[in-house]
Amino acid sequence: MTATTTRPLTVQEAIETRVSIRKFVQEPMNQGDLREILRLATLAPSANNVQTWRAAVIQNPELQVKLQEVSYNQAQITSAPAVIVVYSDMEDALDTLEDTLPATMSEADRQARAAGFRGRFQDQDVAQRGQWGLTQANIAFGYLMLAARSLGYDTVPMLGFQPEKVRELLGLPEHVQFVGLLPIGKRAEDGFPHHRHSVERVVKFY
Amino acid sequence: MTATTTRPLTVQEAIETRVSIRKFVQEPMNQGDLREILRLATLAPSANNVQTWRAAVIQNPELQVKLQEVSYNQAQITSAPAVIVVYSDMEDALDTLEDTLPATMSEADRQARAAGFRGRFQDQDVAQRGQWGLTQANIAFGYLMLAARSLGYDTVPMLGFQPEKVRELLGLPEHVQFVGLLPIGKRAEDGFPHHRHSVERVVKFY
Repeated sequence: MTATTTRPLTVQEAIETRVSIRKFVQEPMNQGDLREILRLATLAPSANNVQTWRAAVIQNPELQVKLQEVSYNQAQITSAPAVIVVYSDMEDALDTLEDTLPATMSEADRQARAAGFRGRFQDQDVAQRGQWGLTQANIAFGYLMLAARSLGYDTVPMLGFQPEKVRELLGLPEHVQFVGLLPIGKRAEDGFPHHRHSVERVVKFY
Repeated sequence: MTATTTRPLTVQEAIETRVSIRKFVQEPMNQGDLREILRLATLAPSANNVQTWRAAVIQNPELQVKLQEVSYNQAQITSAPAVIVVYSDMEDALDTLEDTLPATMSEADRQARAAGFRGRFQDQDVAQRGQWGLTQANIAFGYLMLAARSLGYDTVPMLGFQPEKVRELLGLPEHVQFVGLLPIGKRAEDGFPHHRHSVERVVKFY
């Protein structure tokens, strides 16, 4: 099994072969694959099914040049055929809770549950509850990387950029919080091997 | 392809069939599989490779009863053969940054990079930077669920518990922040179908 196999990878294979890739093959993304990767990310779980993650998908070389300029000029942004800008919009999620509660719930239960969930955040300001929303959106971020890898694509998660300028460039509301940028495409380099804590170092057994 | 197939699932299959399961087959976890699921989670990416996630794995019926008591008595905690309590320890991560920076770096580069990263958080208090660490730990949380599903197991991510009491029960430091509880085992119910926003609802194309 190599990183460039063409059958869909198992979770183990995708996790083992996912490494950050910063040089990409110069060809457009297959749009069906891109769509499927995004669809799989919509299936990520979130507390109360709140689904805070949102994305701006950029496949426009001129816009990628501008995005790179506000990202400390990191070249992977223009090397990749597409960049998925992943962010969290907790305000939108809270405003539309009734859409995300289970379809099997009665209207009365749905309203009660939505009110209860909103109540948990009523003493927090937009930035504070935005931070909470961001934790949930990060689960979808991991899903995007594994879904991409499974379909033969590679990514590099990036937090090095100027959030205010990215917000302005993409016309996003001021309250949204960024999960990260995710350049995506086919790998044109090998990347570095994983360097991680052992299970013993991070897990206690009771 | 069903949820109970025995070959490792592809990422797509794991994502499609992962739903919250609250009733589990009454048999112990295969310890090799449990270990493999945890090992795969160690490979989750994190900004600066900071690796904030930690876990307490509980396979002790008496302790599960106590954990259930501080989790609004949700029965999935004692139904599952194991519960993975996932938390983030940003203080430990910051204290040991030199261990997680790339092995290929020179000692001088490693020290400079660690100092730079610590500098980003020096104006934040423990709770604030703990919040940031939590965002990164949530990527590993998603990995755990997909790794489990791929190997034929099911989970239910839970945020409904009393964090102070869980901390006390497990003897964890006061500063750690919880990602969630994750009961894990073989499914003994079907769960509910996904109910999610469409790609159009959450993604803008540029």
